Amino acid sequence: MAETVHFLRETMAPEEIGWKLLASNVSDVAAMGGQPVYALLTAAISPEWTEEELRQMYDGLYRCADKAGVTLIGGDTVRSPGGLILSLTMVGEVEQGKALTRSSARSGDVVFVTGTLGDSAAGLHLLLHHPEWRKRFPRLVAAHCLPEPQLAVGRWLAGSGFSPACDDISDGIAQEAWEIAEASGVILVLEEECIPVSDEVREYAELMGMDPMEWALCGGEDYQLIGTITQEGWKALKREAERSGWPITAIGRVKEGGPAVELISGSKRMPLPRNGYNHFANRTKR
Amino acid sequence: MAETVHFLRETMAPEEIGWKLLASNVSDVAAMGGQPVYALLTAAISPEWTEEELRQMYDGLYRCADKAGVTLIGGDTVRSPGGLILSLTMVGEVEQGKALTRSSARSGDVVFVTGTLGDSAAGLHLLLHHPEWRKRFPRLVAAHCLPEPQLAVGRWLAGSGFSPACDDISDGIAQEAWEIAEASGVILVLEEECIPVSDEVREYAELMGMDPMEWALCGGEDYQLIGTITQEGWKALKREAERSGWPITAIGRVKEGGPAVELISGSKRMPLPRNGYNHFANRTKR
Repeated sequence: MAETVHFLRETMAPEEIGWKLLASNVSDVAAMGGQPVYALLTAAISPEWTEEELRQMYDGLYRCADKAGVTLIGGDTVRSPGGLILSLTMVGEVEQGKALTRSSARSGDVVFVTGTLGDSAAGLHLLLHHPEWRKRFPRLVAAHCLPEPQLAVGRWLAGSGFSPACDDISDGIAQEAWEIAEASGVILVLEEECIPVSDEVREYAELMGMDPMEWALCGGEDYQLIGTITQEGWKALKREAERSGWPITAIGRVKEGGPAVELISGSKRMPLPRNGYNHFANRTKR
Repeated sequence: MAETVHFLRETMAPEEIGWKLLASNVSDVAAMGGQPVYALLTAAISPEWTEEELRQMYDGLYRCADKAGVTLIGGDTVRSPGGLILSLTMVGEVEQGKALTRSSARSGDVVFVTGTLGDSAAGLHLLLHHPEWRKRFPRLVAAHCLPEPQLAVGRWLAGSGFSPACDDISDGIAQEAWEIAEASGVILVLEEECIPVSDEVREYAELMGMDPMEWALCGGEDYQLIGTITQEGWKALKREAERSGWPITAIGRVKEGGPAVELISGSKRMPLPRNGYNHFANRTKR
Protein backbone atom coordinates (compact mmCIF):
# COMPACT_ATOMS: atom_id res chain seq x y z
CA MET A 1 0.00 0.00 0.00
CA ALA A 2 1.61 3.22 -1.20
CA GLU A 3 0.63 6.71 -0.17
CA THR A 4 -1.14 8.62 -2.97
CA VAL A 5 -1.72 5.37 -4.90
CA HIS A 6 -3.58 3.26 -2.31
CA PHE A 7 -4.39 5.72 0.42
CA LEU A 8 -4.38 9.43 1.18
CA ARG A 9 -3.67 11.04 4.51
CA GLU A 10 -6.90 12.98 3.95
CA THR A 11 -9.09 9.89 3.74
CA MET A 12 -7.50 7.48 6.20
CA ALA A 13 -6.07 7.83 9.70
CA PRO A 14 -2.71 6.11 10.37
CA GLU A 15 -4.43 3.45 12.50
CA GLU A 16 -6.80 2.66 9.67
CA ILE A 17 -3.94 2.33 7.19
CA GLY A 18 -2.24 -0.23 9.45
CA TRP A 19 -5.48 -2.14 10.03
CA LYS A 20 -6.38 -2.23 6.34
CA LEU A 21 -2.91 -3.35 5.26
CA LEU A 22 -3.11 -6.35 7.53
CA ALA A 23 -6.81 -7.01 6.88
CA SER A 24 -6.37 -7.09 3.10
CA ASN A 25 -3.69 -9.76 3.47
CA VAL A 26 -5.77 -11.75 5.96
CA SER A 27 -8.53 -11.63 3.36
CA ASP A 28 -6.26 -13.28 0.78
CA VAL A 29 -5.60 -16.13 3.18
CA ALA A 30 -9.31 -16.35 4.07
CA ALA A 31 -10.10 -16.75 0.36
CA MET A 32 -7.92 -19.87 0.35
CA GLY A 33 -9.54 -21.26 3.49
CA GLY A 34 -6.35 -20.78 5.47
CA GLN A 35 -5.42 -19.53 8.90
CA PRO A 36 -3.02 -16.56 8.72
CA VAL A 37 -0.08 -17.06 11.06
CA TYR A 38 2.89 -14.76 10.42
CA ALA A 39 3.30 -11.34 8.88
CA LEU A 40 6.43 -9.51 7.69
CA LEU A 41 6.25 -5.78 7.16
CA THR A 42 8.58 -3.64 5.10
CA ALA A 43 7.93 0.02 5.82
CA ALA A 44 9.52 2.68 3.62
CA ILE A 45 9.15 5.84 5.63
CA SER A 46 9.47 9.46 4.55
CA PRO A 47 10.31 12.27 6.96
CA GLU A 48 6.89 13.93 6.95
CA TRP A 49 5.51 10.98 8.92
CA THR A 50 5.92 11.63 12.66
CA GLU A 51 6.88 8.96 15.16
CA GLU A 52 3.43 9.31 16.72
CA GLU A 53 1.68 8.72 13.40
CA LEU A 54 3.83 5.66 12.73
CA ARG A 55 3.03 4.33 16.20
CA GLN A 56 -0.67 4.73 15.41
CA MET A 57 -0.18 2.91 12.11
CA TYR A 58 1.47 0.01 13.96
CA ASP A 59 -1.29 0.09 16.62
CA GLY A 60 -3.91 -0.42 13.94
CA LEU A 61 -1.86 -3.18 12.36
CA TYR A 62 -1.37 -4.98 15.69
CA ARG A 63 -5.06 -4.63 16.55
CA CYS A 64 -6.04 -6.39 13.35
CA ALA A 65 -3.23 -8.95 13.80
CA ASP A 66 -4.41 -9.82 17.31
CA LYS A 67 -7.93 -10.29 16.11
CA ALA A 68 -6.82 -12.57 13.26
CA GLY A 69 -4.30 -14.55 15.33
CA VAL A 70 -1.32 -13.22 13.37
CA THR A 71 2.19 -12.57 14.74
CA LEU A 72 4.41 -9.92 13.16
CA ILE A 73 7.78 -11.70 12.93
CA GLY A 74 9.97 -9.42 10.89
CA GLY A 75 10.53 -7.29 7.87
CA ASP A 76 12.54 -4.20 7.24
CA THR A 77 12.45 -0.45 7.70
CA VAL A 78 13.99 1.75 5.05
CA ARG A 79 13.94 5.31 3.87
CA SER A 80 11.24 6.10 1.34
CA PRO A 81 11.85 8.09 -1.83
CA GLY A 82 8.45 9.73 -1.19
CA GLY A 83 5.48 9.10 1.09
CA LEU A 84 4.76 6.07 3.25
CA ILE A 85 5.03 2.77 1.38
CA LEU A 86 4.08 -0.45 3.13
CA SER A 87 4.64 -3.97 1.86
CA LEU A 88 3.29 -6.85 3.92
CA THR A 89 3.84 -10.55 3.38
CA MET A 90 1.43 -12.91 5.11
CA VAL A 91 2.17 -16.56 5.81
CA GLY A 92 -0.87 -18.73 6.36
CA GLU A 93 -1.54 -22.39 6.90
CA VAL A 94 -4.17 -24.70 5.51
CA GLU A 95 -4.65 -28.43 5.84
CA GLN A 96 -2.94 -30.32 3.02
CA GLY A 97 -5.17 -30.63 -0.04
CA LYS A 98 -7.87 -28.40 1.47
CA ALA A 99 -6.86 -24.99 0.13
CA LEU A 100 -9.71 -23.28 -1.69
CA THR A 101 -9.09 -22.38 -5.33
CA ARG A 102 -10.95 -20.57 -8.09
CA SER A 103 -10.99 -23.64 -10.30
CA SER A 104 -13.51 -25.93 -8.63
CA ALA A 105 -16.79 -24.26 -9.66
CA ARG A 106 -19.06 -26.83 -11.34
CA SER A 107 -22.30 -26.60 -13.27
CA GLY A 108 -25.25 -26.59 -10.86
CA ASP A 109 -23.32 -24.96 -8.00
CA VAL A 110 -24.76 -22.05 -6.07
CA VAL A 111 -22.85 -18.73 -6.27
CA PHE A 112 -22.75 -16.90 -2.95
CA VAL A 113 -21.15 -13.86 -1.33
CA THR A 114 -20.58 -12.82 2.27
CA GLY A 115 -21.70 -9.48 3.68
CA THR A 116 -22.91 -6.62 1.51
CA LEU A 117 -21.16 -5.21 -1.54
CA GLY A 118 -20.17 -1.75 -2.61
CA ASP A 119 -19.85 -0.30 0.89
CA SER A 120 -16.12 0.29 0.57
CA ALA A 121 -16.35 1.98 -2.84
CA ALA A 122 -19.20 4.18 -1.62
CA GLY A 123 -17.13 4.92 1.49
CA LEU A 124 -14.18 6.03 -0.61
CA HIS A 125 -16.47 8.26 -2.69
CA LEU A 126 -17.81 9.80 0.51
CA LEU A 127 -14.35 10.36 2.02
CA LEU A 128 -13.17 12.07 -1.15
CA HIS A 129 -16.26 14.16 -1.88
CA HIS A 130 -18.29 14.49 1.31
CA PRO A 131 -16.03 13.96 4.33
CA GLU A 132 -18.51 16.00 6.36
CA TRP A 133 -20.88 12.98 6.18
CA ARG A 134 -18.52 10.53 7.89
CA LYS A 135 -20.82 10.24 10.90
CA ARG A 136 -23.97 9.99 8.82
CA PHE A 137 -22.69 6.90 6.95
CA PRO A 138 -20.48 5.10 9.48
CA ARG A 139 -20.91 1.73 7.79
CA LEU A 140 -19.46 3.00 4.52
CA VAL A 141 -16.49 4.65 6.23
CA ALA A 142 -15.77 1.54 8.29
CA ALA A 143 -16.06 -0.71 5.23
CA HIS A 144 -13.42 1.37 3.46
CA CYS A 145 -11.08 2.07 6.38
CA LEU A 146 -11.46 -0.91 8.70
CA PRO A 147 -12.54 -3.89 6.57
CA GLU A 148 -13.30 -7.18 8.33
CA PRO A 149 -11.90 -10.19 6.50
CA GLN A 150 -14.12 -13.28 6.38
CA LEU A 151 -11.75 -15.79 7.98
CA ALA A 152 -14.37 -17.95 9.67
CA VAL A 153 -16.33 -18.53 6.47
CA GLY A 154 -13.15 -19.41 4.57
CA ARG A 155 -12.11 -21.90 7.25
CA TRP A 156 -15.56 -23.51 7.22
CA LEU A 157 -15.49 -23.81 3.42
CA ALA A 158 -12.04 -25.43 3.45
CA GLY A 159 -13.23 -28.06 5.92
CA SER A 160 -16.65 -28.54 4.35
CA GLY A 161 -15.91 -31.28 1.85
CA PHE A 162 -18.24 -29.69 -0.72
CA SER A 163 -15.31 -28.66 -2.98
CA PRO A 164 -16.21 -24.99 -3.06
CA ALA A 165 -14.45 -22.41 -5.22
CA CYS A 166 -13.61 -19.16 -3.51
CA ASP A 167 -12.03 -15.74 -3.97
CA ASP A 168 -11.99 -12.56 -1.97
CA ILE A 169 -13.56 -9.46 -3.42
CA SER A 170 -10.75 -6.95 -3.74
CA ASP A 171 -11.63 -5.68 -7.24
CA GLY A 172 -15.42 -5.94 -7.38
CA ILE A 173 -17.49 -9.10 -7.94
CA ALA A 174 -17.61 -8.62 -11.72
CA GLN A 175 -13.84 -9.11 -11.76
CA GLU A 176 -13.75 -11.92 -9.18
CA ALA A 177 -16.63 -13.79 -10.81
CA TRP A 178 -14.71 -13.70 -14.08
CA GLU A 179 -11.65 -15.14 -12.38
CA ILE A 180 -13.66 -18.08 -11.07
CA ALA A 181 -15.41 -18.53 -14.44
CA GLU A 182 -12.08 -18.60 -16.27
CA ALA A 183 -10.25 -20.81 -13.80
CA SER A 184 -13.13 -23.30 -13.71
CA GLY A 185 -14.23 -23.06 -17.36
CA VAL A 186 -17.88 -22.29 -16.54
CA ILE A 187 -20.50 -19.54 -16.74
CA LEU A 188 -21.47 -17.71 -13.57
CA VAL A 189 -25.01 -16.34 -13.83
CA LEU A 190 -25.67 -13.66 -11.24
CA GLU A 191 -29.08 -12.25 -10.35
CA GLU A 192 -28.95 -8.53 -9.83
CA GLU A 193 -31.85 -8.45 -7.40
CA CYS A 194 -30.17 -11.00 -5.14
CA ILE A 195 -26.96 -8.99 -4.79
CA PRO A 196 -26.79 -7.74 -1.20
CA VAL A 197 -26.54 -3.96 -1.01
CA SER A 198 -26.73 -2.13 2.31
CA ASP A 199 -29.26 0.59 3.06
CA GLU A 200 -26.39 3.04 3.52
CA VAL A 201 -25.07 2.39 0.01
CA ARG A 202 -28.60 2.86 -1.40
CA GLU A 203 -29.17 6.04 0.58
CA TYR A 204 -25.78 7.57 -0.25
CA ALA A 205 -26.14 6.63 -3.94
CA GLU A 206 -29.60 8.22 -3.99
CA LEU A 207 -28.16 11.44 -2.55
CA MET A 208 -25.38 11.43 -5.14
CA GLY A 209 -27.66 10.53 -8.03
CA MET A 210 -25.57 7.41 -8.63
CA ASP A 211 -26.34 3.76 -9.29
CA PRO A 212 -25.72 1.69 -6.13
CA MET A 213 -25.39 -1.43 -8.28
CA GLU A 214 -22.29 -0.03 -9.95
CA TRP A 215 -20.53 0.11 -6.58
CA ALA A 216 -21.87 -3.33 -5.65
CA LEU A 217 -20.73 -5.01 -8.86
CA CYS A 218 -17.61 -3.09 -9.69
CA GLY A 219 -16.47 -1.33 -6.52
CA GLY A 220 -13.21 -2.50 -5.06
CA GLU A 221 -11.90 -3.43 -1.63
CA ASP A 222 -14.97 -5.01 -0.10
CA TYR A 223 -12.83 -7.92 1.20
CA GLN A 224 -15.91 -10.11 1.31
CA LEU A 225 -15.79 -13.61 -0.17
CA ILE A 226 -17.41 -14.83 -3.37
CA GLY A 227 -17.71 -18.56 -3.79
CA THR A 228 -19.48 -21.45 -5.43
CA ILE A 229 -20.63 -24.61 -3.69
CA THR A 230 -22.79 -27.64 -4.47
CA GLN A 231 -26.48 -27.28 -3.65
CA GLU A 232 -26.13 -29.70 -0.77
CA GLY A 233 -23.15 -27.66 0.43
CA TRP A 234 -25.16 -24.46 0.17
CA LYS A 235 -27.78 -25.88 2.54
CA ALA A 236 -25.09 -26.83 5.05
CA LEU A 237 -23.41 -23.44 4.68
CA LYS A 238 -26.69 -21.60 5.26
CA ARG A 239 -27.37 -23.63 8.42
CA GLU A 240 -23.86 -22.89 9.72
CA ALA A 241 -24.18 -19.20 8.78
CA GLU A 242 -27.43 -18.91 10.73
CA ARG A 243 -25.86 -20.61 13.73
CA SER A 244 -22.71 -18.43 13.58
CA GLY A 245 -24.30 -15.15 12.52
CA TRP A 246 -22.43 -14.92 9.19
CA PRO A 247 -24.19 -12.74 6.62
CA ILE A 248 -24.23 -14.85 3.48
CA THR A 249 -26.36 -14.61 0.33
CA ALA A 250 -26.93 -16.78 -2.74
CA ILE A 251 -26.57 -14.55 -5.79
CA GLY A 252 -26.64 -16.93 -8.73
CA ARG A 253 -25.85 -20.28 -10.30
CA VAL A 254 -23.03 -21.93 -12.19
CA LYS A 255 -23.81 -23.14 -15.72
CA GLU A 256 -21.91 -25.17 -18.27
CA GLY A 257 -20.07 -23.25 -20.98
CA GLY A 258 -18.11 -20.07 -21.03
CA PRO A 259 -15.96 -18.95 -19.50
CA ALA A 260 -18.35 -16.05 -19.01
CA VAL A 261 -20.23 -14.05 -16.42
CA GLU A 262 -23.84 -13.06 -17.01
CA LEU A 263 -26.17 -10.79 -15.09
CA ILE A 264 -29.94 -11.28 -14.94
CA SER A 265 -31.54 -7.88 -14.43
CA GLY A 266 -35.33 -7.96 -14.35
CA SER A 267 -36.33 -9.87 -17.48
CA LYS A 268 -33.03 -9.18 -19.21
CA ARG A 269 -29.90 -11.29 -19.24
CA MET A 270 -26.70 -9.55 -20.24
CA PRO A 271 -23.00 -10.28 -20.26
CA LEU A 272 -21.21 -8.69 -17.29
CA PRO A 273 -17.89 -7.19 -18.48
CA ARG A 274 -14.87 -8.43 -16.57
CA ASN A 275 -13.33 -5.11 -15.71
CA GLY A 276 -16.46 -3.51 -14.40
CA TYR A 277 -14.83 -0.39 -13.08
CA ASN A 278 -14.37 1.17 -16.49
CA HIS A 279 -16.62 -0.73 -18.83
CA PHE A 280 -19.65 -1.27 -16.70
CA ALA A 281 -19.65 2.39 -15.74
CA ASN A 282 -21.20 3.12 -19.12
CA ARG A 283 -24.33 1.10 -18.32
CA THR A 284 -27.45 3.22 -18.50
CA LYS A 285 -28.50 4.35 -15.05
CA ARG A 286 -31.68 2.63 -13.98
CA MET B 1 15.12 -1.57 -2.50
CA ALA B 2 13.82 1.81 -3.61
CA GLU B 3 15.03 3.82 -6.57
CA THR B 4 17.03 6.90 -5.54
CA VAL B 5 17.42 5.52 -1.97
CA HIS B 6 19.01 2.11 -2.63
CA PHE B 7 19.93 2.27 -6.28
CA LEU B 8 20.19 4.66 -9.18
CA ARG B 9 19.52 3.92 -12.81
CA GLU B 10 22.90 5.50 -13.47
CA THR B 11 24.84 3.04 -11.32
CA MET B 12 23.00 -0.23 -11.81
CA ALA B 13 21.50 -2.01 -14.80
CA PRO B 14 17.99 -3.49 -14.35
CA GLU B 15 19.42 -7.02 -14.33
CA GLU B 16 21.82 -6.07 -11.56
CA ILE B 17 19.02 -4.56 -9.48
CA GLY B 18 17.06 -7.82 -9.68
CA TRP B 19 20.11 -9.94 -8.87
CA LYS B 20 21.12 -7.78 -5.92
CA LEU B 21 17.61 -7.70 -4.45
CA LEU B 22 17.50 -11.47 -4.37
CA ALA B 23 21.14 -11.87 -3.34
CA SER B 24 20.82 -9.57 -0.35
CA ASN B 25 17.93 -11.65 0.94
CA VAL B 26 19.77 -14.92 0.29
CA SER B 27 22.61 -13.44 2.32
CA ASP B 28 20.30 -12.92 5.32
CA VAL B 29 19.34 -16.58 5.18
CA ALA B 30 23.00 -17.61 4.72
CA ALA B 31 23.87 -15.68 7.89
CA MET B 32 21.46 -17.93 9.79
CA GLY B 33 22.86 -21.10 8.23
CA GLY B 34 19.67 -21.70 6.31
CA GLN B 35 18.73 -22.76 2.82
CA PRO B 36 16.58 -20.15 1.06
CA VAL B 37 13.53 -21.74 -0.54
CA TYR B 38 10.78 -19.33 -1.55
CA ALA B 39 10.68 -15.66 -2.47
CA LEU B 40 7.75 -13.25 -2.76
CA LEU B 41 8.24 -10.02 -4.65
CA THR B 42 6.15 -6.90 -4.46
CA ALA B 43 7.06 -4.55 -7.28
CA ALA B 44 5.76 -0.99 -7.27
CA ILE B 45 6.32 0.20 -10.81
CA SER B 46 6.32 3.72 -12.22
CA PRO B 47 5.63 4.47 -15.88
CA GLU B 48 9.18 5.51 -16.82
CA TRP B 49 10.26 1.86 -16.48
CA THR B 50 9.78 0.08 -19.80
CA GLU B 51 8.54 -3.47 -20.13
CA GLU B 52 11.95 -4.46 -21.47
CA GLU B 53 13.74 -2.99 -18.45
CA LEU B 54 11.39 -4.78 -16.09
CA ARG B 55 11.96 -8.04 -17.95
CA GLN B 56 15.70 -7.54 -17.49
CA MET B 57 15.18 -6.87 -13.79
CA TYR B 58 13.24 -10.16 -13.47
CA ASP B 59 15.91 -11.96 -15.53
CA GLY B 60 18.57 -10.91 -13.03
CA LEU B 61 16.36 -11.91 -10.14
CA TYR B 62 15.65 -15.33 -11.64
CA ARG B 63 19.31 -15.91 -12.44
CA CYS B 64 20.25 -15.36 -8.82
CA ALA B 65 17.24 -17.38 -7.65
CA ASP B 66 18.22 -20.36 -9.82
CA LYS B 67 21.73 -20.26 -8.47
CA ALA B 68 20.54 -20.18 -4.86
CA GLY B 69 17.80 -22.80 -5.33
CA VAL B 70 15.00 -20.30 -4.70
CA THR B 71 11.52 -20.37 -6.27
CA LEU B 72 9.56 -17.15 -6.73
CA ILE B 73 6.08 -18.11 -5.54
CA GLY B 74 4.13 -14.88 -5.43
CA GLY B 75 3.85 -11.30 -4.41
CA ASP B 76 2.10 -8.34 -5.89
CA THR B 77 2.48 -5.71 -8.60
CA VAL B 78 1.19 -2.23 -7.92
CA ARG B 79 1.55 1.29 -9.23
CA SER B 80 4.39 3.25 -7.67
CA PRO B 81 4.03 6.81 -6.45
CA GLY B 82 7.53 7.42 -7.88
CA GLY B 83 10.37 5.27 -9.17
CA LEU B 84 10.77 1.52 -8.96
CA ILE B 85 10.30 0.12 -5.46
CA LEU B 86 10.95 -3.56 -4.79
CA SER B 87 10.15 -5.46 -1.61
CA LEU B 88 11.20 -9.09 -1.40
CA THR B 89 10.38 -11.59 1.32
CA MET B 90 12.54 -14.70 1.52
CA VAL B 91 11.48 -17.91 3.20
CA GLY B 92 14.33 -20.19 4.21
CA GLU B 93 14.68 -23.44 6.07
CA VAL B 94 17.18 -24.58 8.65
CA GLU B 95 17.36 -27.74 10.72
CA GLN B 96 15.59 -27.34 14.05
CA GLY B 97 17.88 -25.85 16.70
CA LYS B 98 20.70 -25.29 14.20
CA ALA B 99 20.00 -21.70 13.10
CA LEU B 100 23.05 -19.48 13.53
CA THR B 101 22.61 -16.47 15.80
CA ARG B 102 24.67 -13.47 16.89
CA SER B 103 24.55 -14.50 20.53
CA SER B 104 26.83 -17.52 20.72
CA ALA B 105 30.27 -15.84 20.57
CA ARG B 106 32.37 -16.99 23.53
CA SER B 107 35.67 -15.86 24.99
CA GLY B 108 38.55 -17.58 23.16
CA ASP B 109 36.65 -17.95 19.86
CA VAL B 110 38.26 -16.97 16.57
CA VAL B 111 36.61 -14.12 14.62
CA PHE B 112 36.56 -14.74 10.88
CA VAL B 113 35.16 -13.27 7.69
CA THR B 114 34.55 -14.64 4.21
CA GLY B 115 35.88 -12.99 1.05
CA THR B 116 37.38 -9.53 1.00
CA LEU B 117 35.85 -6.40 2.48
CA GLY B 118 35.16 -2.93 1.14
CA ASP B 119 34.85 -3.97 -2.50
CA SER B 120 31.17 -3.02 -2.72
CA ALA B 121 31.65 0.40 -1.09
CA ALA B 122 34.62 1.13 -3.34
CA GLY B 123 32.52 -0.07 -6.29
CA LEU B 124 29.72 2.34 -5.42
CA HIS B 125 32.24 5.18 -5.14
CA LEU B 126 33.61 4.28 -8.55
CA LEU B 127 30.15 4.06 -10.17
CA LEU B 128 29.21 7.46 -8.79
CA HIS B 129 32.47 9.29 -9.44
CA HIS B 130 34.41 7.38 -12.09
CA PRO B 131 32.03 5.28 -14.18
CA GLU B 132 34.61 5.39 -17.00
CA TRP B 133 36.72 2.99 -14.88
CA ARG B 134 34.14 0.18 -14.75
CA LYS B 135 36.31 -2.11 -16.87
CA ARG B 136 39.50 -1.24 -15.02
CA PHE B 137 38.05 -2.39 -11.66
CA PRO B 138 35.63 -5.19 -12.59
CA ARG B 139 35.84 -6.78 -9.14
CA LEU B 140 34.59 -3.63 -7.41
CA VAL B 141 31.72 -3.16 -9.84
CA ALA B 142 30.69 -6.82 -9.54
CA ALA B 143 30.89 -6.69 -5.74
CA HIS B 144 28.48 -3.76 -5.73
CA CYS B 145 26.12 -4.84 -8.49
CA LEU B 146 26.21 -8.65 -8.44
CA PRO B 147 27.12 -9.73 -4.89
CA GLU B 148 27.55 -13.43 -4.23
CA PRO B 149 25.97 -14.54 -0.95
CA GLN B 150 27.95 -17.05 1.11
CA LEU B 151 25.36 -19.80 1.36
CA ALA B 152 27.74 -22.75 1.46
CA VAL B 153 29.75 -21.37 4.36
CA GLY B 154 26.57 -20.62 6.32
CA ARG B 155 25.27 -24.14 5.75
CA TRP B 156 28.57 -25.65 6.87
CA LEU B 157 28.61 -23.52 10.02
CA ALA B 158 25.04 -24.52 10.91
CA GLY B 159 25.93 -28.18 10.66
CA SER B 160 29.37 -27.87 12.25
CA GLY B 161 28.49 -28.40 15.91
CA PHE B 162 31.03 -25.74 16.97
CA SER B 163 28.24 -23.29 18.03
CA PRO B 164 29.43 -20.47 15.83
CA ALA B 165 27.94 -16.98 15.89
CA CYS B 166 27.29 -15.43 12.50
CA ASP B 167 26.00 -12.36 10.72
CA ASP B 168 26.14 -11.12 7.17
CA ILE B 169 27.99 -7.92 6.40
CA SER B 170 25.39 -5.55 5.04
CA ASP B 171 26.47 -2.45 6.99
CA GLY B 172 30.24 -2.89 7.36
CA ILE B 173 32.08 -5.17 9.82
CA ALA B 174 32.34 -2.44 12.47
CA GLN B 175 28.55 -2.50 12.71
CA GLU B 176 28.17 -6.28 12.44
CA ALA B 177 30.95 -6.96 14.95
CA TRP B 178 29.13 -4.71 17.40
CA GLU B 179 25.92 -6.64 16.89
CA ILE B 180 27.65 -9.91 17.74
CA ALA B 181 29.46 -8.30 20.71
CA GLU B 182 26.20 -6.96 22.11
CA ALA B 183 24.12 -10.07 21.49
CA SER B 184 26.81 -12.30 23.04
CA GLY B 185 28.03 -9.94 25.80
CA VAL B 186 31.70 -10.12 24.75
CA ILE B 187 34.53 -8.06 23.26
CA LEU B 188 35.55 -8.68 19.66
CA VAL B 189 39.20 -7.73 19.12
CA LEU B 190 39.97 -7.30 15.42
CA GLU B 191 43.46 -7.03 13.93
CA GLU B 192 43.60 -4.45 11.21
CA GLU B 193 46.43 -6.13 9.33
CA CYS B 194 44.46 -9.38 9.11
CA ILE B 195 41.42 -7.78 7.52
CA PRO B 196 41.23 -9.02 3.92
CA VAL B 197 41.29 -6.19 1.42
CA SER B 198 41.48 -6.83 -2.31
CA ASP B 199 44.21 -5.39 -4.52
CA GLU B 200 41.52 -3.54 -6.48
CA VAL B 201 40.28 -1.75 -3.37
CA ARG B 202 43.86 -0.79 -2.48
CA GLU B 203 44.62 0.41 -5.99
CA TYR B 204 41.39 2.39 -6.37
CA ALA B 205 41.79 3.93 -2.90
CA GLU B 206 45.34 4.91 -3.77
CA LEU B 207 44.12 6.64 -6.93
CA MET B 208 41.43 8.46 -4.97
CA GLY B 209 43.72 9.37 -2.08
CA MET B 210 41.42 7.49 0.27
CA ASP B 211 41.92 4.98 3.09
CA PRO B 212 41.04 1.46 1.87
CA MET B 213 40.56 0.40 5.49
CA GLU B 214 37.61 2.75 5.86
CA TRP B 215 35.79 0.92 3.10
CA ALA B 216 36.82 -2.44 4.53
CA LEU B 217 35.65 -1.66 8.08
CA CYS B 218 32.72 0.61 7.45
CA GLY B 219 31.61 0.12 3.85
CA GLY B 220 28.23 -1.46 3.36
CA GLU B 221 26.75 -4.22 1.21
CA ASP B 222 29.66 -6.65 1.07
CA TYR B 223 27.27 -9.54 1.80
CA GLN B 224 30.14 -11.57 3.15
CA LEU B 225 29.80 -13.37 6.49
CA ILE B 226 31.41 -12.45 9.79
CA GLY B 227 31.42 -15.12 12.46
CA THR B 228 33.03 -16.50 15.57
CA ILE B 229 33.89 -20.13 16.21
CA THR B 230 35.82 -22.18 18.76
CA GLN B 231 39.50 -22.71 17.98
CA GLU B 232 38.86 -26.35 17.22
CA GLY B 233 36.02 -25.25 14.95
CA TRP B 234 38.30 -22.79 13.20
CA LYS B 235 40.73 -25.56 12.30
CA ALA B 236 37.90 -27.65 10.86
CA LEU B 237 36.50 -24.64 9.01
CA LYS B 238 39.88 -23.85 7.47
CA ARG B 239 40.30 -27.43 6.31
CA GLU B 240 36.83 -27.38 4.74
CA ALA B 241 37.47 -23.97 3.18
CA GLU B 242 40.68 -25.22 1.55
CA ARG B 243 38.87 -28.27 0.24
CA SER B 244 35.92 -26.24 -1.10
CA GLY B 245 37.78 -23.15 -2.27
CA TRP B 246 36.03 -20.76 0.13
CA PRO B 247 38.04 -17.58 0.83
CA ILE B 248 38.00 -17.27 4.60
CA THR B 249 40.24 -15.30 6.98
CA ALA B 250 40.73 -15.12 10.75
CA ILE B 251 40.64 -11.46 11.73
CA GLY B 252 40.61 -11.50 15.52
CA ARG B 253 39.60 -13.07 18.80
CA VAL B 254 36.72 -12.97 21.26
CA LYS B 255 37.52 -11.76 24.79
CA GLU B 256 35.53 -11.62 27.99
CA GLY B 257 33.94 -8.29 28.90
CA GLY B 258 32.24 -5.63 26.91
CA PRO B 259 30.12 -5.54 24.93
CA ALA B 260 32.72 -3.76 22.81
CA VAL B 261 34.69 -3.96 19.59
CA GLU B 262 38.37 -3.10 19.53
CA LEU B 263 40.81 -2.72 16.67
CA ILE B 264 44.51 -3.50 16.94
CA SER B 265 46.36 -1.29 14.48
CA GLY B 266 50.15 -1.72 14.56
CA SER B 267 51.08 -1.36 18.22
CA LYS B 268 47.89 0.54 19.08
CA ARG B 269 44.62 -0.86 20.32
CA MET B 270 41.59 1.39 19.95
CA PRO B 271 37.85 1.14 20.32
CA LEU B 272 36.11 0.69 16.97
CA PRO B 273 32.96 2.84 16.89
CA ARG B 274 29.78 0.94 16.08
CA ASN B 275 28.47 3.11 13.32
CA GLY B 276 31.64 3.31 11.37
CA TYR B 277 30.27 5.06 8.36
CA ASN B 278 30.04 8.43 10.04
CA HIS B 279 32.19 8.18 13.12
CA PHE B 280 35.10 6.20 11.87
CA ALA B 281 35.38 8.47 8.85
CA ASN B 282 37.10 11.01 11.11
CA ARG B 283 40.00 8.67 11.80
CA THR B 284 43.32 10.15 10.68
CA LYS B 285 44.30 8.83 7.29
CA ARG B 286 47.32 6.58 7.55
